[in-house]
Amino acid sequence: MATRQRVELSSEQIAAFKSIFQDRCVTTESVLDEHGRDESAFPPVMPSAVIYAKSTEEVSQVMKMCYEQSIPVVPFGAGTSLEGHVLPIFGGISLDISMMNKILEITSEDLLVRVQGGVHRVALNEKLANSGLFFSVDPGADATLGGMASTGASGTTTVKYGSMRENVLAMTVVLSDGTVINTGRPTRKLSAGYDLTRLIIGSEGTLGIITELTLRVFGIPEKMSAAVVRFESLEDGVKAAATIVQMGTNIARCEFLDIASVESVNKHSNLNLSPKPTLFFEFHGSQVSVENDAQIVKEIVSEFNGFEFEWTSDESSRRRLWQARHDLYWSNLHNNPGKRVVSTDMAVPLSRLAEAVDTCEKILSESRFKFCIFGHVADGNFHCTIITDPKFPEELQEIRVLTHTMTSAIIAMNGTCTGEHGIGLGKIDALVEEAGQSSVDTMIKIKNVLDPKNILNPGKVLKV
Amino acid sequence: MATRQRVELSSEQIAAFKSIFQDRCVTTESVLDEHGRDESAFPPVMPSAVIYAKSTEEVSQVMKMCYEQSIPVVPFGAGTSLEGHVLPIFGGISLDISMMNKILEITSEDLLVRVQGGVHRVALNEKLANSGLFFSVDPGADATLGGMASTGASGTTTVKYGSMRENVLAMTVVLSDGTVINTGRPTRKLSAGYDLTRLIIGSEGTLGIITELTLRVFGIPEKMSAAVVRFESLEDGVKAAATIVQMGTNIARCEFLDIASVESVNKHSNLNLSPKPTLFFEFHGSQVSVENDAQIVKEIVSEFNGFEFEWTSDESSRRRLWQARHDLYWSNLHNNPGKRVVSTDMAVPLSRLAEAVDTCEKILSESRFKFCIFGHVADGNFHCTIITDPKFPEELQEIRVLTHTMTSAIIAMNGTCTGEHGIGLGKIDALVEEAGQSSVDTMIKIKNVLDPKNILNPGKVLKV
Repeated sequence: MATRQRVELSSEQIAAFKSIFQDRCVTTESVLDEHGRDESAFPPVMPSAVIYAKSTEEVSQVMKMCYEQSIPVVPFGAGTSLEGHVLPIFGGISLDISMMNKILEITSEDLLVRVQGGVHRVALNEKLANSGLFFSVDPGADATLGGMASTGASGTTTVKYGSMRENVLAMTVVLSDGTVINTGRPTRKLSAGYDLTRLIIGSEGTLGIITELTLRVFGIPEKMSAAVVRFESLEDGVKAAATIVQMGTNIARCEFLDIASVESVNKHSNLNLSPKPTLFFEFHGSQVSVENDAQIVKEIVSEFNGFEFEWTSDESSRRRLWQARHDLYWSNLHNNPGKRVVSTDMAVPLSRLAEAVDTCEKILSESRFKFCIFGHVADGNFHCTIITDPKFPEELQEIRVLTHTMTSAIIAMNGTCTGEHGIGLGKIDALVEEAGQSSVDTMIKIKNVLDPKNILNPGKVLKV
Repeated sequence: MATRQRVELSSEQIAAFKSIFQDRCVTTESVLDEHGRDESAFPPVMPSAVIYAKSTEEVSQVMKMCYEQSIPVVPFGAGTSLEGHVLPIFGGISLDISMMNKILEITSEDLLVRVQGGVHRVALNEKLANSGLFFSVDPGADATLGGMASTGASGTTTVKYGSMRENVLAMTVVLSDGTVINTGRPTRKLSAGYDLTRLIIGSEGTLGIITELTLRVFGIPEKMSAAVVRFESLEDGVKAAATIVQMGTNIARCEFLDIASVESVNKHSNLNLSPKPTLFFEFHGSQVSVENDAQIVKEIVSEFNGFEFEWTSDESSRRRLWQARHDLYWSNLHNNPGKRVVSTDMAVPLSRLAEAVDTCEKILSESRFKFCIFGHVADGNFHCTIITDPKFPEELQEIRVLTHTMTSAIIAMNGTCTGEHGIGLGKIDALVEEAGQSSVDTMIKIKNVLDPKNILNPGKVLKV
């Protein structure tokens, strides 16, 4: 990467884009700055220009021009990446698709919705609610659907409803030379040719720009109920969660918070929750089935010394029970004003989960940083959030050493360095350690043939 | 394709393979013949030699030699493809992995199993039953897991448990030059780099040879129950199935049989089932939940004039109820001795299902061929099986015209020419019609860069 130079657009190049996109080609400092940062702790890097596209055709037009002139293009949605995905580290254009925010078609009878890539997930769910439907994938932030597909996002409901990988059926994608392709079909089963949909999902904008998506949606369950239970030890809580999954219990959500997480929420939201390792559950189904599922969970957690088991199928009580989990991300930021958060995103097979969480807790406890651990334990996926002060950027290097130590330990447990956040800028070496050089070389071959000039989000995922 | 010549191995080349693989490199007529046919109606084509590999290293060794000498290689598992996948139409080697049939590791607590590519799905399930587990994907035939991944197979349980795409987490794959790569991780979530696992799944042996797989398995449900219901019209039955899915009912299987299918089974198995369009259901869960689910289905089907609703949670009665569905494939063959079956594999969005089935029934009713229609209607996927006499190979051309007419109609309904059987030899043009030339060109680029000499299962999926 070090050998590649940052591309600065000439005034002629900017003028050419402005002549086409008018006031939707922007070079004002504040807009460039806004497109040079995300939710990660990486230092900001500004693009040379921001172009707001309104259609697939416009995205294609930008790509044709940039391909011709070898200008890097970084697709930009909501800027909520935690891995520096949208940072234009080699300059060029930030291609903002937030104006492509139309919900094109809701077909209730097919449980499908077709959206433009710039639609936000919360807006989609507000619209779907009128039809008694919901889109299940829920990363913490209110990301765009195009961005969520690009990073291979998932969230708290993956254990029941799957991640983006399972919920995107078809896409419109613009390739590096401006070619527009349609991938997949709006059918539940498909075995026709190479699975370009899943190749693009999780490719983090390095293979193509997603402009349209056909998504699976679900009927809002007849009944949702919630439960919370505390444990004396982190190990007990994590093992209980793993057992619940192993028994095939029908859970819609199963989230874990360590003591530091609970304390963070207590402080932020003025709550008084027991400062204990805590599991949050949600059950979706009929009245009969959610009661039955909760009863099974209650029996299992009691075998792991779970206590203070609370259960409710009342809607407002359900929201109250889950409040701590919902407030967690913001409590971390608000309790540490001016600070930034580095979030790890490791996942392991369920049998290694207790060991994995324990290993990370030990490593972080020996550091000088504040941290907490929480996550989607039913999927074996958990996050360590580490607080850093952007006034001392050298902290990032120190944290990088810690995360590298944790990642290596997790990979040795057959785990992954990222379950849902992606590789981005910071885990390029970890990907090689995890997948092996031959596997990464295969990815590089695909990258080189689909983006021969390396203009699509260069410097992310792979060393090309 | 027409320009490419069939490769015949020289006696020196055969001798070189024999010196390494000894009696596992075979050129006897009967073995060549066995490796020149599958369950499709395509005329057989023999390879020059069959090599039985025992390990990933041996597969790699074969590929290195064949890469060097540009010899085509067709991976062979159980030979149960319905689309001519294993036919070595350009000669070369049939690389048989059926001796790679070891179940390497069952980790119950992770709900994972690691197998060699040549393990058959029935053998796997027999072994898993001891641990209270099962592998869910169930195409009609007793295929190998490597073959099932290669074709992107699914089956009757996909509506609840997913297809191969969702149930393969990691693989060992040998590329065309002999390079061995590991794809994926044994974790439930993964967002690390390009999804090579899903790229290889469904690539039909044209990008790599799958030698090992890590699969998700499930606990055998506490309770399974079954239901059967009849309808006066095909349309009512199909619409009832679509509604059940739209309501989010928890079904594990939902299969449709038309009148001809029921009559075929009656004749074959000496049964006396009502000759009506019929839906078969299976429910998995607790005693409480399967009763509840069946009750919901009963209420929905009654709205579509379903009658003779039978339900049972007794194991032997369940098997009896499902017997007609299980016997269907064989009844088609046994009732037509000496004949072959051409099976279509179309899928559409649920809202178009009744129209799609109706369209195909009309087209086939006007032909001179015997046929029946059945399928996995909860996924919008259905099969038309058309009986042909191999003594009159010109029939295949006539059937090809019919299937082309049906496929074009289905594609116009936003459907696909294949939900689970793959493209193989016969649907290469249909793939272009369905996915578009730009999309297929992208697949070709990937094929060319990963298999530059086009030696991996040439002539399948794509015109390269």
